[in-house]
Amino acid sequence: MRIGIDLGGTNIAGGVLNDSGELLCAKSIPTDAQRPYSEVIHDMGLLAVELAQMAGTSIDSVESVGVGSPGTPHKETGNILYSNNLGWENVPLVQELGRYIPVPIRLDNDANCAALGEYAAGAAKGCRSAVMVTFGTGVGGGIVLDGKIHSGFNSAGGEIGHMVIVSGGVRCTCGRKGCWESYASATALIRMGNDAADRNPRSLLASMRQRDRLNGRLIFDAAQKGDAAANQVIKGYIWYMAEGITNLVNIFQPEAIVLGGGICAQGDYIVNPIREYVAQGVFCKQVALPRMVTATLGNDAGIIGAALL
Amino acid sequence: MRIGIDLGGTNIAGGVLNDSGELLCAKSIPTDAQRPYSEVIHDMGLLAVELAQMAGTSIDSVESVGVGSPGTPHKETGNILYSNNLGWENVPLVQELGRYIPVPIRLDNDANCAALGEYAAGAAKGCRSAVMVTFGTGVGGGIVLDGKIHSGFNSAGGEIGHMVIVSGGVRCTCGRKGCWESYASATALIRMGNDAADRNPRSLLASMRQRDRLNGRLIFDAAQKGDAAANQVIKGYIWYMAEGITNLVNIFQPEAIVLGGGICAQGDYIVNPIREYVAQGVFCKQVALPRMVTATLGNDAGIIGAALL
Repeated sequence: MRIGIDLGGTNIAGGVLNDSGELLCAKSIPTDAQRPYSEVIHDMGLLAVELAQMAGTSIDSVESVGVGSPGTPHKETGNILYSNNLGWENVPLVQELGRYIPVPIRLDNDANCAALGEYAAGAAKGCRSAVMVTFGTGVGGGIVLDGKIHSGFNSAGGEIGHMVIVSGGVRCTCGRKGCWESYASATALIRMGNDAADRNPRSLLASMRQRDRLNGRLIFDAAQKGDAAANQVIKGYIWYMAEGITNLVNIFQPEAIVLGGGICAQGDYIVNPIREYVAQGVFCKQVALPRMVTATLGNDAGIIGAALL
Repeated sequence: MRIGIDLGGTNIAGGVLNDSGELLCAKSIPTDAQRPYSEVIHDMGLLAVELAQMAGTSIDSVESVGVGSPGTPHKETGNILYSNNLGWENVPLVQELGRYIPVPIRLDNDANCAALGEYAAGAAKGCRSAVMVTFGTGVGGGIVLDGKIHSGFNSAGGEIGHMVIVSGGVRCTCGRKGCWESYASATALIRMGNDAADRNPRSLLASMRQRDRLNGRLIFDAAQKGDAAANQVIKGYIWYMAEGITNLVNIFQPEAIVLGGGICAQGDYIVNPIREYVAQGVFCKQVALPRMVTATLGNDAGIIGAALL
């Protein structure tokens, strides 16, 4: 049995995987990230001990504990170099957690863990290689090749959201201009929706905005109700999603591209046009294309992937 | 001993590698690509036989023959699916070449072979992972991770020149708009140089163009002589080179980025500003950056890489 812990800015979610890769039990506790890091890590340790008990074993009998963390973990030292979400810098996570957990502790980025989870047990199961893209507040990614996460010689790779696709375009939080994240994240969709509502004050989109703050789903709803302004926003947004995905196909040609994040609840409504754009835009038109699938494990992906580190 | 053959649109270059990875001998013959493909492959066969003799052995005693081919080879069938340079479509290269060569024949893309050569014996020797970018007529690439070429499940990956960096920009030969190749190839540099000469008829660049057709070196020469128009072109061109390289660093964080192609003869004059842009633009600023080096093997890279397939 292996334990996986998905450390998030809001919650710490953990679960136990049996040797067949099934999730036996899971539990989530609040992170309360403004506390000193030692308290957060203390709670992670207790959670792991409790999870082992829930699965009918003890913490010293599990094979390993894997942690998926936001930000940039350094796999070799076991430190979190930097996490904006947690407000952590150079936190010795594996060392501290080792005070509570007497088995090997492994560490990777949360997006990489989610990709590994979908690869091993979710949407890309059975594929030899997969790139997962998560369209959320940002655009995150994970690259899994032959069963192994690729994150480069310094653990900092896989930042596919920070591939510039509009050189000189919208300023990204990372400092560059025109990153994919600035055009294909939910944040970007809302920005584009607000711009369109400003330009089209009589649109359904604008009237919806008078009742609620715009969010991604509202914009999709307005488009599906036939609002021209919203439709144009969604068309442009899907274009940008597809622009980055086509880049990834040309670079990796993975067996599967897994689309994750809240926006992917739209399913075929976004996947079908993306598939079409990729087929038209891909460099080599003589070969089969990667499978284009939406994530199936939801929040469990991160737990399962962490357990499999 | 292993033989490597670099099949080009103009020449077929081959060489013999000993077990220490040293190039014992090499020979080049014209491709004469407008002939039927069977004649070209016949000459490749004879070249391999001759190379074995030159190295003091016979063709049935070499371990393997590797071929680096332009276009899209299908590694499993041994066919060239498509090559624009050779005018080939669905050519059974390995099968035909097998009529002359009684040892295993391996096949990959020429850019991938060059990357493998630089990885094993050139600029990235000793690194665990490398991405090579060749700035020539187009922008080619090769990705080597843990000693293996990554070209995806369908052999068509590694097309890093067809990563859009200027969405909606200049039309690329592949059909998309704004590919890196359309901004960072020698062809793009010459286009930008001609545009600048048009706009600045009194510049050194414009007067150089009256004597010769512009090429990449002339533009660099004019810039180094202080011509403002040429300087602006080179500054913009290096920016676009760096934009794509920063993307690749964020995605792969390879231990080395190898810069190849004629333009890299400019050495530090281009590598230093690229290094600076990457350091400023990279997503994760808390970790070491990849080594940024120029290719050292020249045309031998493709032969050596092919031999090592």
